[in-house]
Amino acid sequence: MSRHFEQAEGLCEERDPRTEGFVFNHTMLRIKSPRRTIDFYTRVMGMTLVRKLDFPEMEFSLYFLATLAPEAEASWSDEADARMVETFSRPGLLEFTHNWGDEDDESVAYHNGNSAPKGFGHLGFAVPDLDAACARFDELGVDFVKRPEAGSMRDIAFIQDPDGYWLEIVEPACLPEALGEHLG
Amino acid sequence: MSRHFEQAEGLCEERDPRTEGFVFNHTMLRIKSPRRTIDFYTRVMGMTLVRKLDFPEMEFSLYFLATLAPEAEASWSDEADARMVETFSRPGLLEFTHNWGDEDDESVAYHNGNSAPKGFGHLGFAVPDLDAACARFDELGVDFVKRPEAGSMRDIAFIQDPDGYWLEIVEPACLPEALGEHLG
Repeated sequence: MSRHFEQAEGLCEERDPRTEGFVFNHTMLRIKSPRRTIDFYTRVMGMTLVRKLDFPEMEFSLYFLATLAPEAEASWSDEADARMVETFSRPGLLEFTHNWGDEDDESVAYHNGNSAPKGFGHLGFAVPDLDAACARFDELGVDFVKRPEAGSMRDIAFIQDPDGYWLEIVEPACLPEALGEHLG
Repeated sequence: MSRHFEQAEGLCEERDPRTEGFVFNHTMLRIKSPRRTIDFYTRVMGMTLVRKLDFPEMEFSLYFLATLAPEAEASWSDEADARMVETFSRPGLLEFTHNWGDEDDESVAYHNGNSAPKGFGHLGFAVPDLDAACARFDELGVDFVKRPEAGSMRDIAFIQDPDGYWLEIVEPACLPEALGEHLG
């Protein structure tokens, strides 16, 4: 019996015991302005800033955010070192790197990976109610790349953060029906 | 009292109840060859392929992977639609997009975001023992961008996946000491 849930070329069936405890912890994106990025992710997306690390000699700061239910806040330590360890241990973190001065440097603009040269695509967020989420994004003046009703992929939305990075927004329960007709 | 654990410009203190249930679910990267990418993430990183979606009309496939402890496998459904909903609901997923034919097209190479134009930086993984993990990566012939002992940031390693995307590898418990001297 496979340890995976699907078949695919390249799949390694053996689970090397030396990978035990590996955790996919975070995704790092460079940002131009923490003021506008932190506002977007904490206000529009409701995320929590769990840790901030300033490196004065190297003139950069790191911001770590998580989508954290109110009841989950208590599972994080108030003590800075313990919370640093938690920040680098748990799944589902976002890390933003701010090189000091970028916000005042007109020559700095980060690349979202969706035009040449392509690479990174998007961050994906699940929401309980896609229509309500999109109505709220409109109310807040958020930029849409794709509305749920546009294109052939219904019920999937894409919005942009202040640097132009794409956020995919889906209501997971809708996807089997929305994607079903396209699946091979 | 703040709902955040740090102070920062732009921080939104109010938690909009309409963001309740939002989950940062996945990060999407484009890949050239699923055979080599799936091999790398399932063999070298020990990840589990939880869902694969093929779109024959549009000629692309999506691969979703998670770092899944053996005991966590039972929490995933064997039923395809239910597992699609789970895949888009849970935190900490990786999504790889494969446009069919890329693997045979010499003109296709994806951009890792760490040379101009910069943007995306890396995927971060926590491991229980950094020295053991790095010795194993060497044994497996994995490319290092930075070894733990190199540079001023000790105890942080960077390796590369088959497309050249960077993976940061850290042992969380080491970070307060490793980073402490640099922090402001």
